[in-house]
Amino acid sequence: MVGNCLSLSDEHRGKLSRMQQLIVQKFGGTSLATAEKIHRAARRAVRAKRDGYRVVLVVSAMGDTTNRLISLARDMSADPPKREMDVLLTTGEQVSIALMAMAIDAAGHQAISLTAAQLGMFTDSAHTRARIQRINRERLDRELETGRIVIVAGFQGIDATGEITTMGRGASDTTATALAAALGAEVCEIYTDVDGVYTADPRLVPQATKIDEISYEVMLEMAAAGAGVMHSRAIEFGKKFDVPIHVRSSLTDAKGTMIMEETPGMEDIVVQGVTLKEDLAVVSLNAVPNKTGVAAQIFAEVARNQILVDDIVQNIYGHGKLANLGFSTNASDAAEARIVCERLAEEMDIGSVVVDEGVSKVSAIGVGMRTHSGIAAKMFEAVAKAEINIENISTSEIVTSVIVRSEDGPKALRFIHDAFELDKRNESSPSE
Amino acid sequence: MVGNCLSLSDEHRGKLSRMQQLIVQKFGGTSLATAEKIHRAARRAVRAKRDGYRVVLVVSAMGDTTNRLISLARDMSADPPKREMDVLLTTGEQVSIALMAMAIDAAGHQAISLTAAQLGMFTDSAHTRARIQRINRERLDRELETGRIVIVAGFQGIDATGEITTMGRGASDTTATALAAALGAEVCEIYTDVDGVYTADPRLVPQATKIDEISYEVMLEMAAAGAGVMHSRAIEFGKKFDVPIHVRSSLTDAKGTMIMEETPGMEDIVVQGVTLKEDLAVVSLNAVPNKTGVAAQIFAEVARNQILVDDIVQNIYGHGKLANLGFSTNASDAAEARIVCERLAEEMDIGSVVVDEGVSKVSAIGVGMRTHSGIAAKMFEAVAKAEINIENISTSEIVTSVIVRSEDGPKALRFIHDAFELDKRNESSPSE
Repeated sequence: MVGNCLSLSDEHRGKLSRMQQLIVQKFGGTSLATAEKIHRAARRAVRAKRDGYRVVLVVSAMGDTTNRLISLARDMSADPPKREMDVLLTTGEQVSIALMAMAIDAAGHQAISLTAAQLGMFTDSAHTRARIQRINRERLDRELETGRIVIVAGFQGIDATGEITTMGRGASDTTATALAAALGAEVCEIYTDVDGVYTADPRLVPQATKIDEISYEVMLEMAAAGAGVMHSRAIEFGKKFDVPIHVRSSLTDAKGTMIMEETPGMEDIVVQGVTLKEDLAVVSLNAVPNKTGVAAQIFAEVARNQILVDDIVQNIYGHGKLANLGFSTNASDAAEARIVCERLAEEMDIGSVVVDEGVSKVSAIGVGMRTHSGIAAKMFEAVAKAEINIENISTSEIVTSVIVRSEDGPKALRFIHDAFELDKRNESSPSE
Repeated sequence: MVGNCLSLSDEHRGKLSRMQQLIVQKFGGTSLATAEKIHRAARRAVRAKRDGYRVVLVVSAMGDTTNRLISLARDMSADPPKREMDVLLTTGEQVSIALMAMAIDAAGHQAISLTAAQLGMFTDSAHTRARIQRINRERLDRELETGRIVIVAGFQGIDATGEITTMGRGASDTTATALAAALGAEVCEIYTDVDGVYTADPRLVPQATKIDEISYEVMLEMAAAGAGVMHSRAIEFGKKFDVPIHVRSSLTDAKGTMIMEETPGMEDIVVQGVTLKEDLAVVSLNAVPNKTGVAAQIFAEVARNQILVDDIVQNIYGHGKLANLGFSTNASDAAEARIVCERLAEEMDIGSVVVDEGVSKVSAIGVGMRTHSGIAAKMFEAVAKAEINIENISTSEIVTSVIVRSEDGPKALRFIHDAFELDKRNESSPSE
């Protein structure tokens, strides 16, 4: 057990074990926007390969390719068939996999690109929003066995009949974490143009700091509450299959943010991040007869009209006979929501319907909320200090949200960020 | 047998028979370069459908897409793997099929796009120059059965293992004629930015006239001799399976050029077209010992070095003991050809090797040559009248070619065009 000997032996063992280890690296569109950026990503993959890892790359479409393709589609039809949208959009990722394979080949390493059809990335048949059902490992394993770096087209799938599907904007993250889960990867690295997940959007809160470690759960709530860092379904895959997700910069070697299982240290931080979700509307149904099944009936009708519901709050009054029922929705759904709810009001003897557009939601998120009290009060104080009126409040186990006028959103965000001292370094396991 | 009655009945019968008839329409890149052009092509397909035809569309990549993709590949690697080139380039046609399906849908007709993999367009595995081996009719028939317009991606295929292949630049023509052959189409329409095949390239010979009808054989020779109108393999498919090919403008409804089986009338026209093939070099091996197998040995070595051979001419002299052996090749292969031939000269006791770069080939083509004499003489006279020196001559059954200095090519072309009066309307079946 002599130090030097042990450390050598450990290193050796580490190398051996890494020989079996697999890493998934995902590069987003901004990290592939130019030839030089693709070469840089290729070099990074080759380095991981030379470090002894088996390497699977997942790539998005280059730069603004997807937007360009969508605009081509709009020139064809105001309402293009979803099946054909998927045939169109998947070409963006197919271009990227081919170019990446060429760049890796030029860097002196064997690589092979695989489309969803070639890989066997099976989804359901819901065009433009398909969900992964099964990943065929056979081709992947065979290519990895030969020592190749395998490059997989993100965002795309095929259904059981060979139809081309896509999984929604940003779904290359999901491709990456699903592959990492299926292959038992040591880590899924998400390379992007920011160097990690921040306590708040740095464009709105210049004092925001990078988060070193965050639990899947907090990250999921942050994504749902407006943090645009990662596709929610990708985080769900990471959580379900316990794949650590490392969100990091494609421009540097600095450590980014590790999304991982909750550690005991994380509870010490009351609030880990604050988010702003803009372009919302609040629909309030006032004097709703408080009978069994009323809410179910209302939200079934809302869902049937494909109106997206964000948060729901309900208060009871009038000796429990009446309720005020409010929900937030996207501003773009507000007009439709008003029509649906006014029809319901008539049918169901509801007092009135008020639609409040031009509002935003500010949320504070952290697992520490479970064990710490007074978080909501501290948050409301911060908003009051900013001289901003709170319109609605909703809370859940690890999230506290307030609805404010849109114009007040960024200011509320800054004051809450300040109140929880998020400008201080945000580490889940502070050294004692 | 009253006129009116008969004509009605004929029309009815025509309609019925057309119900069974199938038409393949192929749109090239220039005919799909803008949204408006795609809509125009879509309307044309819908019109054919409403006229009672079953319709299969074959589309190329939009405008200069393929060149743009090739330039992206060059940014990755000086010598990108051919497999990945195919993965890259096939995205161009995939974009087109999706957009075309959307445009047809917007025009009020059902359509479905099919990639090579979805259709089952099987080729061999020779990436970037694959050849069609088998077309699976099952999916095509099923979609046509439902009344849909089927849109197929040109240029692309898959091999037996699902690898993506391409069939060479311009091969969407081949996709179209192969499909027309497989489906027993009445006609394969090739829509392009010119209104047919001309007696000569109108950019070089302003007096050139459109050819109304041309045989597969003459068209094949014209393509081989430099006419860039159609992919040779496409014409071969037409010939082999007797599918008439109608080359016509995507901008008008005017009749274009029908490529078809030779008719008796065609022989009346001695020369149907003249072509210019530029950027050639002539390699001459002088004083070659004239022994059995010498030519075979030389051209085996030339082929082994992947030097493309255009025409070959050989003369014998010195009481049959020596030969002068010349062949034309692409100027880009000239340097390599010189190295190979000088090595051969040393090994085989050949007198000398002369490589003459900067030459062009001018050819006159027509089935009438078979039965008419004096064609070659008339052609040489025309070149002499232009005061141009002829360097080499080669003739075959329906082609007479001369090699001239590059700078003289266009002038020789014009004088030959003039000598055969090709500025007069070129019809294979002139009304008596």
